[in-house]
Amino acid sequence: MIVILKQNPNQAQVNNFIGWLHEKGIEVHTSVGISQTILGLVGDTSALDINLISALDIVEDVKRIQEPYKNANRKFHPQDTVVKVGDVQVGGGNLTIIAGPCSVESEEQIVSVARSVKASGANMLRGGAFKPRTSPYSFQGLRAEGIRLLTLAKAETALPIVTEIMDASQLPLFEDVDVIQVGARNMQNFELLKALGSLRKPVLLKRGLSATYEELLMSAEYIMAGGNDQVILCERGIRTFETYTRNTMDVAAVPVLKRLTHLPVIVDPSHSAGRSDLVAPLSCAAVAAGADGLIIEVHNDPEHALCDGPQSIRPEVFDGLAERLREIAELCRGASK
Amino acid sequence: MIVILKQNPNQAQVNNFIGWLHEKGIEVHTSVGISQTILGLVGDTSALDINLISALDIVEDVKRIQEPYKNANRKFHPQDTVVKVGDVQVGGGNLTIIAGPCSVESEEQIVSVARSVKASGANMLRGGAFKPRTSPYSFQGLRAEGIRLLTLAKAETALPIVTEIMDASQLPLFEDVDVIQVGARNMQNFELLKALGSLRKPVLLKRGLSATYEELLMSAEYIMAGGNDQVILCERGIRTFETYTRNTMDVAAVPVLKRLTHLPVIVDPSHSAGRSDLVAPLSCAAVAAGADGLIIEVHNDPEHALCDGPQSIRPEVFDGLAERLREIAELCRGASK
Amino acid sequence: MIVILKQNPNQAQVNNFIGWLHEKGIEVHTSVGISQTILGLVGDTSALDINLISALDIVEDVKRIQEPYKNANRKFHPQDTVVKVGDVQVGGGNLTIIAGPCSVESEEQIVSVARSVKASGANMLRGGAFKPRTSPYSFQGLRAEGIRLLTLAKAETALPIVTEIMDASQLPLFEDVDVIQVGARNMQNFELLKALGSLRKPVLLKRGLSATYEELLMSAEYIMAGGNDQVILCERGIRTFETYTRNTMDVAAVPVLKRLTHLPVIVDPSHSAGRSDLVAPLSCAAVAAGADGLIIEVHNDPEHALCDGPQSIRPEVFDGLAERLREIAELCRGASK
Amino acid sequence: MIVILKQNPNQAQVNNFIGWLHEKGIEVHTSVGISQTILGLVGDTSALDINLISALDIVEDVKRIQEPYKNANRKFHPQDTVVKVGDVQVGGGNLTIIAGPCSVESEEQIVSVARSVKASGANMLRGGAFKPRTSPYSFQGLRAEGIRLLTLAKAETALPIVTEIMDASQLPLFEDVDVIQVGARNMQNFELLKALGSLRKPVLLKRGLSATYEELLMSAEYIMAGGNDQVILCERGIRTFETYTRNTMDVAAVPVLKRLTHLPVIVDPSHSAGRSDLVAPLSCAAVAAGADGLIIEVHNDPEHALCDGPQSIRPEVFDGLAERLREIAELCRGASK
Repeated sequence: MIVILKQNPNQAQVNNFIGWLHEKGIEVHTSVGISQTILGLVGDTSALDINLISALDIVEDVKRIQEPYKNANRKFHPQDTVVKVGDVQVGGGNLTIIAGPCSVESEEQIVSVARSVKASGANMLRGGAFKPRTSPYSFQGLRAEGIRLLTLAKAETALPIVTEIMDASQLPLFEDVDVIQVGARNMQNFELLKALGSLRKPVLLKRGLSATYEELLMSAEYIMAGGNDQVILCERGIRTFETYTRNTMDVAAVPVLKRLTHLPVIVDPSHSAGRSDLVAPLSCAAVAAGADGLIIEVHNDPEHALCDGPQSIRPEVFDGLAERLREIAELCRGASK
Repeated sequence: MIVILKQNPNQAQVNNFIGWLHEKGIEVHTSVGISQTILGLVGDTSALDINLISALDIVEDVKRIQEPYKNANRKFHPQDTVVKVGDVQVGGGNLTIIAGPCSVESEEQIVSVARSVKASGANMLRGGAFKPRTSPYSFQGLRAEGIRLLTLAKAETALPIVTEIMDASQLPLFEDVDVIQVGARNMQNFELLKALGSLRKPVLLKRGLSATYEELLMSAEYIMAGGNDQVILCERGIRTFETYTRNTMDVAAVPVLKRLTHLPVIVDPSHSAGRSDLVAPLSCAAVAAGADGLIIEVHNDPEHALCDGPQSIRPEVFDGLAERLREIAELCRGASK
Repeated sequence: MIVILKQNPNQAQVNNFIGWLHEKGIEVHTSVGISQTILGLVGDTSALDINLISALDIVEDVKRIQEPYKNANRKFHPQDTVVKVGDVQVGGGNLTIIAGPCSVESEEQIVSVARSVKASGANMLRGGAFKPRTSPYSFQGLRAEGIRLLTLAKAETALPIVTEIMDASQLPLFEDVDVIQVGARNMQNFELLKALGSLRKPVLLKRGLSATYEELLMSAEYIMAGGNDQVILCERGIRTFETYTRNTMDVAAVPVLKRLTHLPVIVDPSHSAGRSDLVAPLSCAAVAAGADGLIIEVHNDPEHALCDGPQSIRPEVFDGLAERLREIAELCRGASK
Repeated sequence: MIVILKQNPNQAQVNNFIGWLHEKGIEVHTSVGISQTILGLVGDTSALDINLISALDIVEDVKRIQEPYKNANRKFHPQDTVVKVGDVQVGGGNLTIIAGPCSVESEEQIVSVARSVKASGANMLRGGAFKPRTSPYSFQGLRAEGIRLLTLAKAETALPIVTEIMDASQLPLFEDVDVIQVGARNMQNFELLKALGSLRKPVLLKRGLSATYEELLMSAEYIMAGGNDQVILCERGIRTFETYTRNTMDVAAVPVLKRLTHLPVIVDPSHSAGRSDLVAPLSCAAVAAGADGLIIEVHNDPEHALCDGPQSIRPEVFDGLAERLREIAELCRGASK
């Protein structure tokens, strides 16, 4: 951490500050320039509150050098984390494909989609039971019943299931869920993250609509600080000025996050664009950039889907796509490393 | 709602769609052009799911004409809503000033700040007990104890208290809180909004970091749909590319929201900028633009504040500011109407 | 175009407006609803000024249905445009790779890089002579001398050359330049676009830092309206809140633009990220998404490049990358269509 | 400037780098930490190219401490610059109001608006002759004839005139123009800025749609580096995710820029919102925040304006507003300092 002092700072206050840092085990290197004095703070600065320091009268600016996350940091954990979900391994060079409808609508629907995506090579089944909707007047999901139907589909197909939680109070319903998803709008719902940190179950953490990489990693850090290190990160498109697509997929998030962290990074091409006709090119791009997996919305009848129909692809389209994605993964394994 | 059909749509599907709309009580006006057919949907379209319609094979695009919010809409409720908090009236031409520290730190601190801001003319006391922090390693607030200290300060000064909730499970602790605040990061925590909708207590709803006016109003609608219409909206700065300030205060939110909704609109100049030296000019701007109130961070010792010190002003600065704000409100009452 | 009238509009004004539209050959379909009247305007609305109509007292809102660009619109020109540059064909299923240094620095440098990228299979040579720099104190390019050196490299290698223009007054220097590049900051320099529209020479038009797809296409339309239809569009990253990368590559721009327009679409992975270590994964992603080409910064000595060194890759890295990109293009040709 | 070295850097390269810095008169302070070495560069670093340094193999990151602008920097020029335009003084505690139509349309129109705004107390007349329009099919301004008509209005009213230039080749037409405006889309048209730097005439420089404060100041620096220090900065709204308004006025730009630079800062409330009904509240907010002036679109017949009618106010509205703005300026002079 670098602290830039104001011009002509009160020297007694500077000495107090340096003394306080020494007590915390931080070494301080002072560079006195013509117009400014700079302090270089060396040691474990992740516990220093940057806001506290900025507030000091003698301080002009503070810049962090070291990342504020530890558990998620590849510097301290160089090996890829591989998250195991039953027989499925996420990360470590595997390509994991998660597929299924936006919402669970009926037993028939979810079982039929599950069978179909399994036949096409999907590794896990997704389906929304609790649905965050912008309008209180839109379909809010089947909730507990939706989770029950997912477990039926799992029983039929042996596919592990991934579904979204919206509030820590729903946790008892998630016992048979294999991967708990945290949606983009809850990425900084810190109470929920803390609750998930106390579990020993994989969490799929989606990037917030306007979140930076560091903010996403700090949210992962919340979960990991509680002892749960089975976190899968998910790029799902960020908000930009472009309105033709629902969001803008940030494909660079894949190689950058994989550099900053050891956690697996997957991509959601369906929410990234909000348009079924873009799912194939965006999926190909994500895999070519080195993604560890994809989570794709597949619906047997998108026209009558109760939510997000415009971004769902049909099982037969998914079938061809899944095959091509594995070929690209094969080809690009070298390029993205 | 306007539905633009694809070129040469399947006529049977078009007829089915129109029949389905008629069943829902929607009138359909058809404009057949050379290259495109446009359907004008007339009636109560707020219950129509725009996504469902977009997903139809025959549909190229859908545009909403009517706002998707009802209870919050000024068109259906032309009179200003005045939220009553004890003797304080928020909205309806009053200027409400809420002041206090970012975090409650101790009885001495909160009582002293409360007395001081009361003497300067503040109408309510703010103070954080549950603190949403980006890092799990930062101070997370005194939590239940913080609320207890706020009630002590209220007992001493008779100022109503405003404090933030982070999860619906904390509600039992908020019995003596006068106004429950929902932070920017929880603006779309829909489970929390629903829980607050079932109360009959004022809610101060902050705009999300990247939320549009419509999204803010839809979140208000979540609360109001549950029967709680005591909602105060709060502009607190949005994220932009500028990093010199923590956020960018969108002062136009004030006159625009007051046009779209009957709910009171206040501004938080402290979080908007994240810099104490900008609190005064931003507060003046907000009042000049017609804000119904302000929520300002005031700390007796910003250098040692446990959070957000850099944006807190001292009581003596607040004192002069509060007076000037009332003068501007007096002068501008006509201009912003 | 859809015009939504205010409630209870002045009927005489409505009739005047409809008469004026009829004079312009526009048919008007009127939908009278309970609370609002909607006019559907049918005909060639691209010449109607949406601002003029919005300003009418009787008008609440105007929404465009038809795209405001014609010459660039795939609807009116379904076949891919193939831009011919000597023997090189850009678009129409080809993968065009343009490579070279950010700035032309010396004869030795540009000739050596040109030979090297040609050997690796590049189809054109890039190199900056006029350099738009944020600071007046940074290296501004060799200007006329830079163009002279590029023509030397072209003479040596037979690679067509691509270089940026910053002002119409520089045009006389561009006689021997094969493709004139318009940089992101000049995307809406309309006087420059008009000047380029009067040429019969290919223009590589980069997307502005915060431009939408429609704005990019309207800038292409400026050039095409002058009679020059040899326009190559280039995605080069947009500004987002993420600062780890210089910009954020919007890979969805590729399939979306190719749907909206018949013009070729290439990608600049070097400016998109501003980091050499991301050039390979981003290039792979762009090609997997269906890009018609790439423009990549290659420098023989990035550490001593006079500008943008951090984003340049070395010739030996480019060599391996170019081969892989052609393999991905082969594999994905089907996926992105 | 702070340079963070990679872990275990090549020591010979580090020594070379330090030697090179010494040659440039830069002192280097080295802080060796456990995991990282940090170099503090002290001296005039504004001439160091941050990109060059970032590209070095031994460098992990570089952070600038000192602002990269000099002539525009208040640190080196603490007194307010007052730009004199005839008898009008911009900056230094004055409130300058510039008013007039978006486009010059006819002699009658411009003279009539000029007389009217003069009577209401405007200090200068604005009017567009060269119009940057997104579409090539929209009205492009009267160009040379527009400037001629402006000078007629000036002859009639003695109001100095402000009008926009779009290309350096138009300069000969601007001889009788008092203040040359650079539009938002040309803020980084560096060739144009250099041409203006060689003049000795005031320039009104508008902030780009997505520009940061530093970028705006660097563009001012381009003009000032040429010797022309009569630059007036103008906040005119930035692009955000909100589409209800055309742009989002960043009112904090006023106090922040006035802190960073000695140049006067004015605000354009008309382009900021794109809606005439927001001009009054946004103008009041800007003045309350300490703006040195405003540039407001006033049209005698907004419904028939050839461009930007929706954001123009009528002369009678302007009349009341101008008076109120002077009252607010009087009241707030203390608050924003």
